[in-house]
Amino acid sequence: MTNEVIDKLIGALRLFAKERDWDQFHSPKNLASALCVEAAELLEQFQWLTEAESKAPSAEQRKAIGEEMADVFLFLLRLSDKLEIDVVQESWLKLELNAKRYPVEKARGKSTKYTKL
Amino acid sequence: MTNEVIDKLIGALRLFAKERDWDQFHSPKNLASALCVEAAELLEQFQWLTEAESKAPSAEQRKAIGEEMADVFLFLLRLSDKLEIDVVQESWLKLELNAKRYPVEKARGKSTKYTKL
Amino acid sequence: MTNEVIDKLIGALRLFAKERDWDQFHSPKNLASALCVEAAELLEQFQWLTEAESKAPSAEQRKAIGEEMADVFLFLLRLSDKLEIDVVQESWLKLELNAKRYPVEKARGKSTKYTKL
Amino acid sequence: MTNEVIDKLIGALRLFAKERDWDQFHSPKNLASALCVEAAELLEQFQWLTEAESKAPSAEQRKAIGEEMADVFLFLLRLSDKLEIDVVQESWLKLELNAKRYPVEKARGKSTKYTKL
Repeated sequence: MTNEVIDKLIGALRLFAKERDWDQFHSPKNLASALCVEAAELLEQFQWLTEAESKAPSAEQRKAIGEEMADVFLFLLRLSDKLEIDVVQESWLKLELNAKRYPVEKARGKSTKYTKL
Repeated sequence: MTNEVIDKLIGALRLFAKERDWDQFHSPKNLASALCVEAAELLEQFQWLTEAESKAPSAEQRKAIGEEMADVFLFLLRLSDKLEIDVVQESWLKLELNAKRYPVEKARGKSTKYTKL
Repeated sequence: MTNEVIDKLIGALRLFAKERDWDQFHSPKNLASALCVEAAELLEQFQWLTEAESKAPSAEQRKAIGEEMADVFLFLLRLSDKLEIDVVQESWLKLELNAKRYPVEKARGKSTKYTKL
Repeated sequence: MTNEVIDKLIGALRLFAKERDWDQFHSPKNLASALCVEAAELLEQFQWLTEAESKAPSAEQRKAIGEEMADVFLFLLRLSDKLEIDVVQESWLKLELNAKRYPVEKARGKSTKYTKL
């Protein structure tokens, strides 16, 4: 299975930066900062909502949430491109690792971190 | 073009949470917090590096960076699933918006935010 | 009123960094990253708790929360020292600004951001 | 030494929230989220600057930085009040702990985390 969907986005981001001469700003360090800033902007959408409210955002909230999720994804893909790290492959590896860290019988119904399970 | 790659990851995450009875913890509010925490763990890998150093991480650093990128991606996909927001589609929309906010001729070589361009 | 309490901490941090030759790492950019990372570590303590649970942390949780709060404060003071920005004075100014942005009669009982009030 | 400076700010914040009936939103969980969001807004001021540039912000940047630092501090104090955790005392304890984790002779000139020193 190829990552055509993701590769197309990465290509578009690459062109976007090239046209604007933005590669000079896109060091991995800076991209990780930007990603963190966008993740916080996403969190901002939820910060004063109850958990129940967060499950049913208004149309306006959904729009803002979608935009911030896109920002997070775009910086993640840009970082992935710059460091040549395949985020999909890494995700499958991490899922495997998490399966070991959180065995079903020990982790069921608990939010405890694996280091304390 | 389907998002087979992403749908498979979303499906795996859904099963992972179901088996562990973790849906109770996975409100959008909590997932956004967790995503933010992981984004900061990614940033932590770069915080004391120079920009130049961040472009050439050691094998050990690459491994840690890959794991944190995966964590960010997995929580982003989990949130996407819970809110039924298609992060790929949102990303194309955001790219279009960014193209309007940052016209090539005005944004070239500048890191200025669109609100101040 | 002097800021003796704060000045003593700032002085101790300055010495701490000097003894370890850490000023080379403590650019405002890096300190802001580190502060953000510590704020996320603080958030991590609460991420899977309900709001109610977060009001009554266990002794072990309180200890971890206290440590992360200290980390946030220490990096904030270090940044304050490096940029010669008086965070107490800035806080009084911000409180004044917030009083204007959130007039009692309009903001009462609402978590709406001032830009939408 | 009393923390008069800090106690005055905490008192002002308490009144500010009470007048607006905002205590309902100020669970420690939510305050930690808000603090994290503000820390990221502070980081945003520096994200595309070089380290050198971050040492000499413009007057406009200084103003924005000061405001974001205030936001971080105010949420930190609000959390401190809600959980009855003395952030100054915790900071001295943390400095002591850091002195043990980072002995001068081992940590000099290195940004390595204590777990890997």
